[in-house]
Amino acid sequence: MNRDLPIGIFDSGVGGLTVYRALHGRLPEERFVYLGDTARVPYGTKSLSTVERYAIENARFLEAHGIKLLVVACNTASALALPAIRAGVGVPVVGMIEPGAERAVREAKSGRVGVIATESTVRSGAYSEAIRKLAPEAEVTERACPLFVSLAEEGWAETEVARAVAAEYLGGLREQGIDALVLGCTHYPILRRVIQETIGGGVRLIDSGEAAADAVAALLDAESLRRGGFDTETGRLLKARAHAGRLCDDLDHFYVTDAAERFARVAERFLGIAPSVLEAVEIRGQDELHTR
Amino acid sequence: MNRDLPIGIFDSGVGGLTVYRALHGRLPEERFVYLGDTARVPYGTKSLSTVERYAIENARFLEAHGIKLLVVACNTASALALPAIRAGVGVPVVGMIEPGAERAVREAKSGRVGVIATESTVRSGAYSEAIRKLAPEAEVTERACPLFVSLAEEGWAETEVARAVAAEYLGGLREQGIDALVLGCTHYPILRRVIQETIGGGVRLIDSGEAAADAVAALLDAESLRRGGFDTETGRLLKARAHAGRLCDDLDHFYVTDAAERFARVAERFLGIAPSVLEAVEIRGQDELHTR
Repeated sequence: MNRDLPIGIFDSGVGGLTVYRALHGRLPEERFVYLGDTARVPYGTKSLSTVERYAIENARFLEAHGIKLLVVACNTASALALPAIRAGVGVPVVGMIEPGAERAVREAKSGRVGVIATESTVRSGAYSEAIRKLAPEAEVTERACPLFVSLAEEGWAETEVARAVAAEYLGGLREQGIDALVLGCTHYPILRRVIQETIGGGVRLIDSGEAAADAVAALLDAESLRRGGFDTETGRLLKARAHAGRLCDDLDHFYVTDAAERFARVAERFLGIAPSVLEAVEIRGQDELHTR
Repeated sequence: MNRDLPIGIFDSGVGGLTVYRALHGRLPEERFVYLGDTARVPYGTKSLSTVERYAIENARFLEAHGIKLLVVACNTASALALPAIRAGVGVPVVGMIEPGAERAVREAKSGRVGVIATESTVRSGAYSEAIRKLAPEAEVTERACPLFVSLAEEGWAETEVARAVAAEYLGGLREQGIDALVLGCTHYPILRRVIQETIGGGVRLIDSGEAAADAVAALLDAESLRRGGFDTETGRLLKARAHAGRLCDDLDHFYVTDAAERFARVAERFLGIAPSVLEAVEIRGQDELHTR
């Protein structure tokens, strides 16, 4: 595998940009190629078979582009479709669930963990399963918070409305006495401040994107795939460390399946800067509908 | 045309159920077939070409099912794709925009009209254009209210959160002194009470679905297409009036492109009852992505 290839990232839309930001911060020497499936967003209310189909198409698009590793920067796709994606591509795949679950288990001293996510992720039970695999005695409470996505995209993260919505969603979790809360949807880190205020300062917020960035760094080291890094076996410097890029500069390429202008606008809201290189690509549906 | 055929209705998802309710109330003797494109919802943040493509596929699916008339029960599809849909099918097509615009012009004594809708509908300017065509001196102010959709689907129509969101979205329109407000997204009638309270009792709310139901009734009469009605030319009773159905009974058929269980749940929230006959159908995407 060519270690100079970029890392592929896909999400159903703009939410994965928080994962891109975490990866970029953790691995500034790496290059990234991001696909936002904005023509088919959201995945969080869709069924298993549909999410699987979309996820595999996205993964193969990025694989064809040339990547050394794929990050599924969408909790719903990670929760529902990770085995299908791993079977469908030839590069290592990192999802959101396991890294988030591991960090939650590490941080939750009492064993009481909250998870907030989309409807589909919650219904899948993927976080509960992953957490209980690591800590069978853990008590996990999951809650779908669909309005958080609209609040983040609307730029209302710091408003009274956001506080009211957070109070409604998080009241029950607060009463349960959790000591770690997994932000199990890539939009939620945008609302981090309001979520922390509402759930209380004693609860540790787990950003699955940040946890995944650590997992990616560890995997790159283990496989000696870091761009311009060290060979972990020999400790030898492979080559001069590449110049670190800036967020959204022209070393990172962004693709969307629809509405690039809107993507750029929300990207600027999320990251403070819009992508330099942003291109629209298309997934064509067949003409007929089949009864299943 | 066989007048006993059902009326076709399509929407990007569940919102069109408010249009179904309006049509059913206005034309209780008719049968309906509804397609909710829940695999590709929402349309309101998508581009013209994508919405056109989806809308034509949906229209053709219903035409193949056998319908006498098609109602595009989605404001975004009506705003962006009505000419393409009309060119793509052989049955008469009624959209949301013109009926809503006509009623707004009739109700707005001052000529100051507000329109609330999805991002794509607002960006298209379709309502402003349709209103100014009928009343060139009208002052039209449009505002996208994306959070209203999540609030309606979450069942939060009568909450403090809904009031706070409505205050944020509608404050500017209230100051403009509008005297009619078009509910230019099929989800918004679910929030009718909160919208009316916020905008003030003097502003007339225009439900585009109800306006479209009147337009459908007039069209059926003009074409002598009412089921078991009168022939408008001869005044002769064509046959005994069919027994009027109940909302969501087994005379009306519902199709969704994904997640039927969620559709049924939200339908019950919107209509007080879930469809008796609900079937999942599939639109398959091609495997490859094309750069455009």
